Amino acid sequence: MPTVTTKESEVDVLIIGAGPAGLMAGNALAKNGINVRIIDQRPDKLGAGQADGIQPRTIEVFQAYGLADRLLKEGNQMHMAAFYNPSPDGGIELTDRVPDVTAESARYPFEVTLHQGAIESIFSDSMRCFGVEVSRPVVPTSIQLSEDESKLNDPNAYPIRVELLQVETEIVHAKFVVGADGAHSWVRKSIGIIMEGEQTDYIWGVVDLTPDTDFPDIRNRCVIHSNEGSCMVIPREDDKVRLYIQLGDKRTNVTSNGRIDKEKLHPHNLLETARKILQPYYIQTPEKFDWWTIYIVGQRVASRFSVKDRVFIVGDACHTHSPKAGQGMNASMNDSHNLAWKLTHVLKGWAKISLLKTYEFERKQYAQDLINFDKKFAKLFSGKPRTEDYQDGVSHEDFLKIFQTFGGFTSGIGIHYAESSITSEKHQDTAKNLIIGERILPQIFLRVADSRPVEIQDLMPSDARFKVLVFTGNSSSIDQLKKIRIVSQELDTLLSSLVKGKAVFDIITVSSAAKGRVRYNDLPKSLWSHWSKVLIDDTDVKGAQGGDGYRKYGIGPDGAIVIVRPDGYVGAIVPLDRVRDLETYFSGFVNA
Amino acid sequence: MPTVTTKESEVDVLIIGAGPAGLMAGNALAKNGINVRIIDQRPDKLGAGQADGIQPRTIEVFQAYGLADRLLKEGNQMHMAAFYNPSPDGGIELTDRVPDVTAESARYPFEVTLHQGAIESIFSDSMRCFGVEVSRPVVPTSIQLSEDESKLNDPNAYPIRVELLQVETEIVHAKFVVGADGAHSWVRKSIGIIMEGEQTDYIWGVVDLTPDTDFPDIRNRCVIHSNEGSCMVIPREDDKVRLYIQLGDKRTNVTSNGRIDKEKLHPHNLLETARKILQPYYIQTPEKFDWWTIYIVGQRVASRFSVKDRVFIVGDACHTHSPKAGQGMNASMNDSHNLAWKLTHVLKGWAKISLLKTYEFERKQYAQDLINFDKKFAKLFSGKPRTEDYQDGVSHEDFLKIFQTFGGFTSGIGIHYAESSITSEKHQDTAKNLIIGERILPQIFLRVADSRPVEIQDLMPSDARFKVLVFTGNSSSIDQLKKIRIVSQELDTLLSSLVKGKAVFDIITVSSAAKGRVRYNDLPKSLWSHWSKVLIDDTDVKGAQGGDGYRKYGIGPDGAIVIVRPDGYVGAIVPLDRVRDLETYFSGFVNA
Repeated sequence: MPTVTTKESEVDVLIIGAGPAGLMAGNALAKNGINVRIIDQRPDKLGAGQADGIQPRTIEVFQAYGLADRLLKEGNQMHMAAFYNPSPDGGIELTDRVPDVTAESARYPFEVTLHQGAIESIFSDSMRCFGVEVSRPVVPTSIQLSEDESKLNDPNAYPIRVELLQVETEIVHAKFVVGADGAHSWVRKSIGIIMEGEQTDYIWGVVDLTPDTDFPDIRNRCVIHSNEGSCMVIPREDDKVRLYIQLGDKRTNVTSNGRIDKEKLHPHNLLETARKILQPYYIQTPEKFDWWTIYIVGQRVASRFSVKDRVFIVGDACHTHSPKAGQGMNASMNDSHNLAWKLTHVLKGWAKISLLKTYEFERKQYAQDLINFDKKFAKLFSGKPRTEDYQDGVSHEDFLKIFQTFGGFTSGIGIHYAESSITSEKHQDTAKNLIIGERILPQIFLRVADSRPVEIQDLMPSDARFKVLVFTGNSSSIDQLKKIRIVSQELDTLLSSLVKGKAVFDIITVSSAAKGRVRYNDLPKSLWSHWSKVLIDDTDVKGAQGGDGYRKYGIGPDGAIVIVRPDGYVGAIVPLDRVRDLETYFSGFVNA
Repeated sequence: MPTVTTKESEVDVLIIGAGPAGLMAGNALAKNGINVRIIDQRPDKLGAGQADGIQPRTIEVFQAYGLADRLLKEGNQMHMAAFYNPSPDGGIELTDRVPDVTAESARYPFEVTLHQGAIESIFSDSMRCFGVEVSRPVVPTSIQLSEDESKLNDPNAYPIRVELLQVETEIVHAKFVVGADGAHSWVRKSIGIIMEGEQTDYIWGVVDLTPDTDFPDIRNRCVIHSNEGSCMVIPREDDKVRLYIQLGDKRTNVTSNGRIDKEKLHPHNLLETARKILQPYYIQTPEKFDWWTIYIVGQRVASRFSVKDRVFIVGDACHTHSPKAGQGMNASMNDSHNLAWKLTHVLKGWAKISLLKTYEFERKQYAQDLINFDKKFAKLFSGKPRTEDYQDGVSHEDFLKIFQTFGGFTSGIGIHYAESSITSEKHQDTAKNLIIGERILPQIFLRVADSRPVEIQDLMPSDARFKVLVFTGNSSSIDQLKKIRIVSQELDTLLSSLVKGKAVFDIITVSSAAKGRVRYNDLPKSLWSHWSKVLIDDTDVKGAQGGDGYRKYGIGPDGAIVIVRPDGYVGAIVPLDRVRDLETYFSGFVNA
């Protein structure tokens, strides 16, 4: 018998699943120069359907990866939400229109809708520029994690053995594995993580179509409570529209084995229900539906998000909930956004391996918050409307209240990470509106050298570096400039002493000096690695943009140093004369 | 002897020269579906140097072709102009900083600088998407225009015979020829057009480099008048900078045959002069210069811009002037922008051939205005600064005055085409701030269907269609809606009766109704070919953008119809009850 040799290979990070969560991780790691491989068992990329909503914070994250332009070019924007309720004459009528996004500080004050396949292409095209492509179809068949503690604690070891089946079998030895393989995650099941929570009784249908209709709010997000059931309208790219349609309860549409009876339900049935709900407006049956599905809302969170901080799960693999608040894809991609820079820092030897514990710490709490919100939202949304005859129903005021109260949360803008080794809650008063644990507030400052107004978020791309924002106070004052010189020396000494020194840091300097005669090169050289990194808090030449940033950030004339994590979240704040407190902060996770 | 057959071919438009003017024409015609061919005698596209300034109006034009995103991504922005003059202590000092662009209505209130090769690539990449590529190296060797009047008046005839030399000789029979072959235009000389005007005594050097300097305004446009001569600083893409350096007068640098003595002048000499001018600031000699040249300012305009309206010249082929006001490439590209839609309309049979007369009418006047401005500007710029010892010199106030007075002109925003068959000056009072003959003012309106704020310029792409802007007044008023219904019928009848009907027109409707409960489909269907074409004059959901458009346009509650030409210039304005005056307007140039 001939010897059969099985192909074996090594990789730093193996990502299983190339949906939005997997692709976000793959693109981020590839961009950071990490040796990464991404596989998917589907032979082709997604054509239509699935998730489609991108929340304001997620647009900011896309921008941080240089991908927002394309997202905005291809996607539809939802600026307005319209609410319809039963009319006294029968049918429905417009009750109210309100801004779809209520989060005050949203840089992009709207949601983008675009089908999931297009979003996946944005990532896969970007990833290709960094030399990484999805391998497909590749099926993982076994995963084993070493029990050797010394290996598990060594970021350079390959403690994970994954068996893959493509044309032939291959054994991959990975340093880390990311399971991004969806709600029925093979990775999750293989490593013994269970989902906690339950299924609801709500059954919904979804149809994607290009409608012929006289419904005047067809291009707004609409929440429709009618006596025929509830419906949500989500306008999409081009002239497409998605309808979420409430169906009868579980008993009438479920087979004896507990599954949805798809035999009984076809897109034409779904649209027929929508037509009743939308009366007196008409909606024609289209020649074809782009996509359709039916689902029972489940609200579950995984018991753990990783095993030994070597195998992680992200996205639908660790949380499922109702799709109508448009959170799913956002939660998934932001899991990976949170994890990718941490894996990068550990693999590059910059950070201690314990940094990876903060992934579950931060994202599991978020997922639980999301489920709690979803329970309230889904209940109100699926409830019957309040009418004269049914006073126990859901009133417009009830619904609007939860819609707006949770606006910060659903936009992603209000996501708050609790105190941990990477989030130090000291000195919040020094920049009292830059909430530690929340994303850095967008703000336009003026670049000193060329008077160009720049959004400070755009100086903080997702490049795995910590951003050190030095708010110097008024550098035109001789006394303040003296203080700034001292701070710049202390900071230089500190950053140089940290592992790998400045490669991990990028300094951005923001003076409160007024435009006019100010010069960028009056500041100490260590505060401007490049002329483009010196800003002032003033309006542009037309007085149209920028200004008032110190006040909006809650920073006084004494200035502040703000550390922004590689994912764009405020990690620490110190007064200018407390550079030593930054040493404490960084020593919590940086490799000695 | 064997028979030698020469290759012969036919083309609708032959463009000779693939610089910015030729490529603008090629891209525009290709986009409009015109059979076009573009040749250039240079074997390769441009690497570095040449023109580099894109004015605010030209950025708007790029946007109309869908090319502004890339221009803005690749280019540098100049927001501020700084003025330096002799210091009492010797050397120079900062006198003033002012906004570089003073035109109030500029949508992009800055200039973009980017080397000409990159700009050419923007066009050639776009043109490739429409199936047209530059043929190079191809040398034209003869051009003959038929004298047969019936052929000359038939837009479908091929009255021009051009002989081309590539590997073998080819005879091209063209309906129209566009000569975009530069200041030494072979086309111009071949068809016997002469340049009128003269050379000046001003000799200037240009160097492109990435400087090491402590000059604090190196990223602003700087006008430096020193006792060592004048210099202009133009910051460019990346960290590049262009310096224009005044050299001695003609006598010292010109050879006996009247040409510049390049033997005597090297980039190191030029930079040495710049170093003296820039004192007390240092500028190091770089390892290499990206590009350099020396020129004598010539100020000339071609006697004619076409022969028989079949052979046209555009760009440097019809005007030369000093480069320092950054007009050259802009004037050139806008010649082609003006010509391309006219050729399209004639070739498609929509317009009378006489439409082409308006090209020379409009662009020659502009070129003459440009030379007149340039004479004043170049004189002040090359003049010695006023000092205590030299009271006849140029004062900062003199220079600033011309800089700002001509700001509207140099930005391209103030370009005004005089009355002609396509520019009817009637009814200016109906929209008194939309100046007939000037480009449509940018303004953000709110899209009714989805409350998305949109820049109205973006609804008017350069697609060869006339845009019919119907300002309806308040469509929420029942009385006004009655009037609107009548207007919509009259307009529908008129547009349908014109040649090829609506394919040449795009209707955009702007109501002064307030947002809230307004519905896009309350307006007559003929006023909204698509839901995206109905706007209201109100702010966005955040109150941050839009609103006040009727007032800014000078339109009263009775509304107006504004005809915007395919190149973005206001062609005609009529009150809502004077649709018949539009018939008069269009009958002046539309084919019966």
